[in-house]
Amino acid sequence: MSLTIKLHISNHSNFLAQPKIHQNPTKILPKYIYQTNPLRPIVLNQTKMSSISSQSKRVIKNSLIDPDGGSLIDLVVPENERNLRVSEAESLPKIRLTKIDLEWVHVLSEGWASPLKGFMRENEYLQSLHFNSLRLADGSFVNMSLPIVLAIDDKAKDDIGSSPNVALVAPNGDLVAILRSIEIYKHNKEERIARTWGTTAPGLPYAEEVITPAGNWLIGGELEVLKEIKYNDGLDQYRISPKELRKEFDRREADAVFAFQLRNPVHNGHALLMNDTRQRLLDMGYKNPILLLHPLGGFTKADDVPLDVRMEQHSKVLEDGVLDPETTVVAIFPSPMHYAGPTEVQWHAKARINAGANFYIVGRDPAGMGHPTEKRDLYDPDHGKKVLSMAPGLEKLNILPFRVAAYDTMAKKMSFFDPSRAKDFLFISGTKMRSFARTGENPPDGFMCPGGWKVLVNYYASLQEVESKQPATVSA
Amino acid sequence: MSLTIKLHISNHSNFLAQPKIHQNPTKILPKYIYQTNPLRPIVLNQTKMSSISSQSKRVIKNSLIDPDGGSLIDLVVPENERNLRVSEAESLPKIRLTKIDLEWVHVLSEGWASPLKGFMRENEYLQSLHFNSLRLADGSFVNMSLPIVLAIDDKAKDDIGSSPNVALVAPNGDLVAILRSIEIYKHNKEERIARTWGTTAPGLPYAEEVITPAGNWLIGGELEVLKEIKYNDGLDQYRISPKELRKEFDRREADAVFAFQLRNPVHNGHALLMNDTRQRLLDMGYKNPILLLHPLGGFTKADDVPLDVRMEQHSKVLEDGVLDPETTVVAIFPSPMHYAGPTEVQWHAKARINAGANFYIVGRDPAGMGHPTEKRDLYDPDHGKKVLSMAPGLEKLNILPFRVAAYDTMAKKMSFFDPSRAKDFLFISGTKMRSFARTGENPPDGFMCPGGWKVLVNYYASLQEVESKQPATVSA
Repeated sequence: MSLTIKLHISNHSNFLAQPKIHQNPTKILPKYIYQTNPLRPIVLNQTKMSSISSQSKRVIKNSLIDPDGGSLIDLVVPENERNLRVSEAESLPKIRLTKIDLEWVHVLSEGWASPLKGFMRENEYLQSLHFNSLRLADGSFVNMSLPIVLAIDDKAKDDIGSSPNVALVAPNGDLVAILRSIEIYKHNKEERIARTWGTTAPGLPYAEEVITPAGNWLIGGELEVLKEIKYNDGLDQYRISPKELRKEFDRREADAVFAFQLRNPVHNGHALLMNDTRQRLLDMGYKNPILLLHPLGGFTKADDVPLDVRMEQHSKVLEDGVLDPETTVVAIFPSPMHYAGPTEVQWHAKARINAGANFYIVGRDPAGMGHPTEKRDLYDPDHGKKVLSMAPGLEKLNILPFRVAAYDTMAKKMSFFDPSRAKDFLFISGTKMRSFARTGENPPDGFMCPGGWKVLVNYYASLQEVESKQPATVSA
Repeated sequence: MSLTIKLHISNHSNFLAQPKIHQNPTKILPKYIYQTNPLRPIVLNQTKMSSISSQSKRVIKNSLIDPDGGSLIDLVVPENERNLRVSEAESLPKIRLTKIDLEWVHVLSEGWASPLKGFMRENEYLQSLHFNSLRLADGSFVNMSLPIVLAIDDKAKDDIGSSPNVALVAPNGDLVAILRSIEIYKHNKEERIARTWGTTAPGLPYAEEVITPAGNWLIGGELEVLKEIKYNDGLDQYRISPKELRKEFDRREADAVFAFQLRNPVHNGHALLMNDTRQRLLDMGYKNPILLLHPLGGFTKADDVPLDVRMEQHSKVLEDGVLDPETTVVAIFPSPMHYAGPTEVQWHAKARINAGANFYIVGRDPAGMGHPTEKRDLYDPDHGKKVLSMAPGLEKLNILPFRVAAYDTMAKKMSFFDPSRAKDFLFISGTKMRSFARTGENPPDGFMCPGGWKVLVNYYASLQEVESKQPATVSA
């Protein structure tokens, strides 16, 4: 394996599976799936990494789409200033972050939200809430559909007093950042929820988890992150920054990058779509379109499949050859999930521009969910792609709407739906898929690669095991 | 009086009081206040009017701000095509309008919502809801913060069937318009309310009056209005179209037009502000700034002062010389009121661009109201002017934020608030003013001109008279 590592370093292919590895994955199968995961990037030693990082600041190739605002924001304090900033942070009033606040610090620190340089000030918050976009100094717009804000309560506000700067502290007590030239303004939660979700019904996962319990103030300012955000959950290697992704796309000489956002396991319908998209791009004349398979890694609702299981499932999809590792980059998008439909899909697309994607695949009801209190979808399933295609600031991004794939009972595989023989097709919903996996029943042949399916079955089996160990509860 | 009329026609000053008339208003005081109202325009005979209209299509002076989209929309069918269109309308499926739908037909027909050519299609509706703006073919944006939509119910949708065009029928049964190349799409009322008001709390006047009782479908298309919308309430003469207003501003050789939106009586604080604005514009080098005093004339909530009383009150303000008729144009803005704060103030400003205004005065909490279920303002009082100053599509409009005026107990008049002698100032809220008028108590000297105040006192007295005639109700 050390030989393979050297090979990886020499050709910089540190973000993608080498077909060599996964042709015979059993040979190197250790305890943790991620060590066998063909997607696993090789972790370079820190010195090497930082020297590459600092070089790369000056080299962003023209071949990739420009980041929003013209240059990619990087809010991590340079190594040589770190000690100074840590000392300063120790002396400042402190704000304790939640786990999800920290995810946003991560998102901001790496420039996914470029040109944003910190948590939103009121002017940015209002533009995001009302216009889903920010106006730049030159009069142009960048898209910014979700408020990226930090809430504090009355006590924290009092503690800050008149200090112009504050330190941000992770849930584990680590100092993570300084927020400078702060601005504190009112957090009208009802208005924020209504304008972001188009409903104030109780049961919106992000609102219940993040907004309702939060303080009545928002604090904006310029962020200086003391060091790169790590989660130490065995998945940090997949948390690849926009800067690193851009380097990888450049290294591969990608002339088109198409992003696929997901928070669910990949079935063969998705794969068909991604492979078909690649073919369409080749037909359009692109020589080397690269897929960014980009599972969301931040907060998700309780009944979604957890990130580690999804990453394992995705790795099997590549191992099984359903997607081609040569033309695929798998990485984690560190944002929390809002389930805010047409408003959120803009954020999903915008962030991928910053990572170098110039094509974005959008499906039916992106970032949607069932209405929390009514028996219907929260959003019109077509609104996501319509809103996305008209959104200010996303003009330079090519939106690729989904073609509907379904299980073709004649061909015994996932195919694009053909209305002329509608009766041959079987639609397998997420709920249906979950119920298959939960009961251990197999889905139709060709629905998902066997390796990927097994990951899901094991996950649901482990859930049931946990559940069966819980004391029985009797509902009133 | 006939001499005076001729004089008006000859110098086209048909929108404004002649000081000559109101210097001695008692001489010509008839039954209806509007006949003595010095703001009353002279009604030209129809032939004359139409010949002026058709000429003016080609002449819009460069001195005035361009309408949104470059040219002012006029959806009224030309006289010589009217009979043909009426016959066609008679043969089409019919949609019965509400009173407020008809107000929107009026708004659209005269181009207040330029470049909109009819009730919004879904693409326009979604852009309005999510971005408060519409993208034009050239990539530029115009502001469009309120959905201007027509709702129909299931039965109306069934009745339309596959007809590409429908006829719109006024509440009184008159055919008013044809809607062409229609598009019917879902009316998600909850989402519309949440995104427009930032709340879904029960008790929003427009939502309760218009949206909640409306059908589950919206119908968009191009509008052809069979003839100018008239209300026959004695106030039609003040309903001056953007085209006519532009002509009047041109006639007066206005080099700046500053609009003041209001739905309340004018007190001397407002007058101070408007007069001060004019002075500021003169100081800026403008030679002839004209004030567009522009009361909203469509739907308002039950406890607002009704339009006819407000118009009478405004006329007294000019009669009493508080505002200068020579530099003031008073007209009715035909839009219904949403009470949607920062979202609505954009509409109020945008519509005035179309009428030729290049300056817009914005106050504290524009289009705001108390939260319907909580003891607080629905909107942050500063958000209106902040949102307005950043709104896409309003770049060409100069936003003039209010200075706060209050009653100066030393000077015994309304003055700009001076924090250095705060204790000398008395803030008289709308509620306080109403309670004065209701009880017949006089406000402090100099708060409002005596003539204007008397109008309010009489109105509230008449209300109490009506109330006292109602049978007493006992609350449970």
